[in-house]
Amino acid sequence: MSWPAAATERRLIEIIRRAARRAPAVRVGIGDDCAVLEPAAGSALLATTDLLIEDVHFRRRWAPPTDIGWKSLAVNVSDIAAMGGRPRWGLIALACPEAVTIEEAEAFYSGVQALATEHGVAIVGGDTSASPKGWIINVTLLGEAVRAPLLRSTARVGDVIAVTGSLGRSAAGLALLEAAPVPAGLAEEARADVTAAHLRPRPRTREGLWLSEAGGVTAMIDLSDGLATDLGHLCEESRTGARVDLDRVPVQPSVHAVARALDRDALAWTTGGGEDYELLLTTAPDAFELLAGGLASATGTRLTAVGHMTSADEGIRYLDAAGRAVSVEPGFEHFVTGPARA
Amino acid sequence: MSWPAAATERRLIEIIRRAARRAPAVRVGIGDDCAVLEPAAGSALLATTDLLIEDVHFRRRWAPPTDIGWKSLAVNVSDIAAMGGRPRWGLIALACPEAVTIEEAEAFYSGVQALATEHGVAIVGGDTSASPKGWIINVTLLGEAVRAPLLRSTARVGDVIAVTGSLGRSAAGLALLEAAPVPAGLAEEARADVTAAHLRPRPRTREGLWLSEAGGVTAMIDLSDGLATDLGHLCEESRTGARVDLDRVPVQPSVHAVARALDRDALAWTTGGGEDYELLLTTAPDAFELLAGGLASATGTRLTAVGHMTSADEGIRYLDAAGRAVSVEPGFEHFVTGPARA
Repeated sequence: MSWPAAATERRLIEIIRRAARRAPAVRVGIGDDCAVLEPAAGSALLATTDLLIEDVHFRRRWAPPTDIGWKSLAVNVSDIAAMGGRPRWGLIALACPEAVTIEEAEAFYSGVQALATEHGVAIVGGDTSASPKGWIINVTLLGEAVRAPLLRSTARVGDVIAVTGSLGRSAAGLALLEAAPVPAGLAEEARADVTAAHLRPRPRTREGLWLSEAGGVTAMIDLSDGLATDLGHLCEESRTGARVDLDRVPVQPSVHAVARALDRDALAWTTGGGEDYELLLTTAPDAFELLAGGLASATGTRLTAVGHMTSADEGIRYLDAAGRAVSVEPGFEHFVTGPARA
Repeated sequence: MSWPAAATERRLIEIIRRAARRAPAVRVGIGDDCAVLEPAAGSALLATTDLLIEDVHFRRRWAPPTDIGWKSLAVNVSDIAAMGGRPRWGLIALACPEAVTIEEAEAFYSGVQALATEHGVAIVGGDTSASPKGWIINVTLLGEAVRAPLLRSTARVGDVIAVTGSLGRSAAGLALLEAAPVPAGLAEEARADVTAAHLRPRPRTREGLWLSEAGGVTAMIDLSDGLATDLGHLCEESRTGARVDLDRVPVQPSVHAVARALDRDALAWTTGGGEDYELLLTTAPDAFELLAGGLASATGTRLTAVGHMTSADEGIRYLDAAGRAVSVEPGFEHFVTGPARA
């Protein structure tokens, strides 16, 4: 049966309804003109939205519907995490061409639901539509911040720059997915690691919440467009410069293995590649060690210092192990010419 | 200059930033990972989202970018109005093909802004993207309800069914836009009336708020998918049937004029046509006259009784002036086969 007959829509709404019904702080979920929500008194409300479009942000050739669903919500959860907030309520709009089956649409929602469950998100609304060409997804996510949200604009000169996890896995995964078939000699473990990073990113909700509660973080952003671009945002909003020591940027062996197999440059992926959905943050110099130790104990996630904030007139510099300036290409290219996400 | 160069995106973000800066209850607007909002204590939060897709919901041939912007937000404002809520914060995602100019994109945002200003909405976030084919817009709108939101599920047997304004203008406008050129002999006034209704609908925010505060409305929904479909939703959610007296359904002379000029059936537009964005509501029988009088005084908008709710086993019946059952086709057809909006 093909998408999207009226029966399909009703079935999908029923799936979403069932999920929404269990959620706390939802007075009315799917099935009325609006969702009716009950934000906690005294919390700030966080809101973010992202469009994901077939052949701009993903390809059906290598992205299964469950992964598309997972990632659509994950990228928004990452935005809430980057403010130190708690993700709460999601609205999912999906448009598909006629050839899409109910099974594919259901798989999409099951991917959304899997990520939602893991991060405490209730799906409370949405929209379905026909699409003349390709899948189109929009996710809006609402969250709450009990403490003051961590902004991009509040880093100070001298602050340590740090990242969670490691960088470049998602871009390596994308390169591998686009380069199919898998090059001979690449270990299955490395392939699986980087493609999972691209298809099913794991937003840093727990880490963001822990860091927000711990205090000592001066600014934070998530790495959606790549280190160069996102550090650029942080510096611009905070009116600072930055110095990054490239040899300190954490990179998994899998990323180097894929770079060798594809004869590509791992550095371009770790600095210019996007969609790692790690947290990029700044701390006062004397707060970093304590935060890194505490975060590792509480969540198992490594926090690595990669440089420090400088005055704006020094610009943003990337240095190699010998202290030489390295030119870093900012930006994360979608398949179709276009801007990175706002 | 063509869309969407990085410079364009920055310029558009600047436009949105400027608008958001003036807004109350917005701690952080565009320019961070999330918007940070401050809902009023004790209010319920309302949330709704809609996708609008070129050649599914509109055609560039007859919809200028300002009107696309206006309507994208209007359809969401109407959902908040239908709950008796106050629209507050909008998130606007726009994806365009490369050929779109900055001027067109700016015109789109100016249309959004015009509607936003009229209804007290602050644009606090969004997303931009390239699109491989056609314009894609997603709007998420958040609102607040001080009183209990008016739901679809709370109508009672015996309640009066009423609508604001008149029905069928938008569908008549769509038929005329699709049938271009304008048929000879149709008065310009009629043409302008119905095409404006389709391209720049005026959501009933003031009316919804007034009705919510007045009390006595038992259930409410907005007419986005047409009387037959939306009354169907109301009856299904409230577990009732309904009887509609077709000769009482308010229709403007312009709709009849267009139907004659195109040799089409005005009844199909008033009952099956969508996108009027009027309010469809139910009241206790003894409350209707008072509400209609009060609403007219307060807002200038007419409220017309068109039937009453019956028990579920009577189904939904449409009767002509002689009391004969008339078959009414539900549903509002998009250009591409697909479901109506959720």
